[in-house]
Parts: sequence; C-alpha cells; structure tokens
Amino acid sequence: MSSSTVEKKATPEDYPRFMQTAYEQALKSRSEGGIPIGAALIHLPTSRVLSRGHNNRVQLSSNVRHGEMDCLENLGRVPEGLLRECAMFTTLSPCIMCSATCILYKIPLVVLAENQNFLGGEQLLRDNGVEVVNLNDENITKMMKDWIDSPQGSVWNEDIGEVSK
Amino acid sequence: MSSSTVEKKATPEDYPRFMQTAYEQALKSRSEGGIPIGAALIHLPTSRVLSRGHNNRVQLSSNVRHGEMDCLENLGRVPEGLLRECAMFTTLSPCIMCSATCILYKIPLVVLAENQNFLGGEQLLRDNGVEVVNLNDENITKMMKDWIDSPQGSVWNEDIGEVSK
Repeated sequence: MSSSTVEKKATPEDYPRFMQTAYEQALKSRSEGGIPIGAALIHLPTSRVLSRGHNNRVQLSSNVRHGEMDCLENLGRVPEGLLRECAMFTTLSPCIMCSATCILYKIPLVVLAENQNFLGGEQLLRDNGVEVVNLNDENITKMMKDWIDSPQGSVWNEDIGEVSK
Repeated sequence: MSSSTVEKKATPEDYPRFMQTAYEQALKSRSEGGIPIGAALIHLPTSRVLSRGHNNRVQLSSNVRHGEMDCLENLGRVPEGLLRECAMFTTLSPCIMCSATCILYKIPLVVLAENQNFLGGEQLLRDNGVEVVNLNDENITKMMKDWIDSPQGSVWNEDIGEVSK
C-alpha cells in the first residue's frame, strides 16, 4: 500500500518510489542467496502496490519465477481486465518471457531500472503497444553488475537461457 | 518415462504418443475443476518424458501456470542448455507468454494438438527459429470446445487476458 492515505492516480514523479519497492525485493532475493531482480505491480488509478515479487530460481528451483512472474504469482487471480490498469516495475529489462506475459495481460506500462546488464523484450513490448520507460538507475545497475561479477552470478546464464562459455 | 526400455531419438511418429501424455494432463486438470490444457516436455535424443504439467489457474489461483509453464515448473532447475534438446508438447496453441518462454530457453520444437479454439504465438515462435507442428487432433479440439462452451468455460477469457462481453 502507498504510505499516502489518499489514493491518487500515479504520475511519472511517483516512478522512483515504486522502483524502490521493486529494488527492495531484489535485495531481499540477494539476501536469500537468490538472483537480485525484483518487481512491483502498481495499480495506476490509485497508486496502490498490488503485488511484489523477486526472482525465485534459486530459492524455489524455478524456471518460471523471474521477478515479474513471481510478482504476478504472488498477486493471485484478479478480476478480468484489472491488469490493464496496472504498471509493472522491474529492476532489470524484462526478458522475452516476462515481456510476453505483460503483453498477454495487456499491462499498458513497463518501467525498468536499467538495461545495461541485460536487454530483454523491450522492442516486443513496444511493438505490442506497451509503453516502456527506462529510469537508468545507476545504483541498481551497479548492484546487478556487482552480483553478476560475483561468484553467486554463476547462475545468471541459466536464468536467461544461455550457456556458460 | 517411455514405455520402451531402450532409449531412442524421437521421431514424428512418436508425436501422437507424446501428445497423449499432454492430453492426460488436460483431462486431469478438468477433473479437478481446472482449465483442460496439458503439456509434456520431451527430451528428443532419448524420447524421455522429462516433465508433465497442466493449467493451474483455478487450482492454484495462478496467473502464470498455463500448461506449458506448469510443466517447466514441475521440471525444476536443470543443467544449462538441456532445454535446447527438448520439445514442448501442448494440447492447445501456446499463448504469447508460453511461446516466449520456449524462446527464452531455446526449446527447438513445439508440437500442439490444435489451434482452432485459440491461436497463440505460433508466428513469434517461427520468427525465432522454433519449429512448430500442429497435429490437428480432432478429439482434443472437441474436448476443448466442449469445455469452453460449458459453464466451467467462463474462466477462459481470464486465462488469455481477455474481458467477457
């Protein structure tokens, strides 16, 4: 929930605050020994945080629970069409799986912290009418790069369908 | 596992047998009150069934567990690159989320039973080098149509991101 007691329509000046929620999920995953990618689903008409999630590959031995997917799983079923009023915030450019999931549910806005460490399905999103905003967050970019370069980062290729050299 | 005791490379003549495994998953889901879409992941060099799954929207209140995704979740983590040797069998044309997931993991072959009840991301699969085979299975097509037309089928629009009229 927003700390505000009055619900209001989300605007771009709210985006850093929502991204902070996603970032906290990334840090939570890292603290659990997992991949530090987090997500938050925001209901745009009210600015409410409907759901949070983080990559759970390591924690749940999951092939599917990237941050954005975990966020949608934590949400559970919602009324038809509700996701059309939501934005997906994610600390990293969403891979093609997560991008396509946003397209399936007609999520109109995806906000990412950075795409320097990985460039996902941003063009597919745009080709399907989804607005994509990159906050170019230097702090989150550094966090992810440091993790990829660390011993724990050896799981990274598996997460994006690549094979280590 | 294959009923054969000798592992052998899968060929198109094996496809109906693998689809039967996916179909049994669809029937299992229907018997649980769920959406009757099933999937099976086949290791092509050995013809082994590595994993089975079915739509779990109703059963798990899930936005993500379409049949193909559930199959990958039931698999759990596997060595890097193993999925590049596998085929995804599914009783219905895979939606854009499931198609993109196959692309992410570089699954080279998707075999579907039918696309009369729903046409998913088949073109996206082909555009990304994935072979797509449609078995045009009349029995499975009728099963899915009968379900969509039944009272239980009211959940169908939610599963594909649509809104009921």
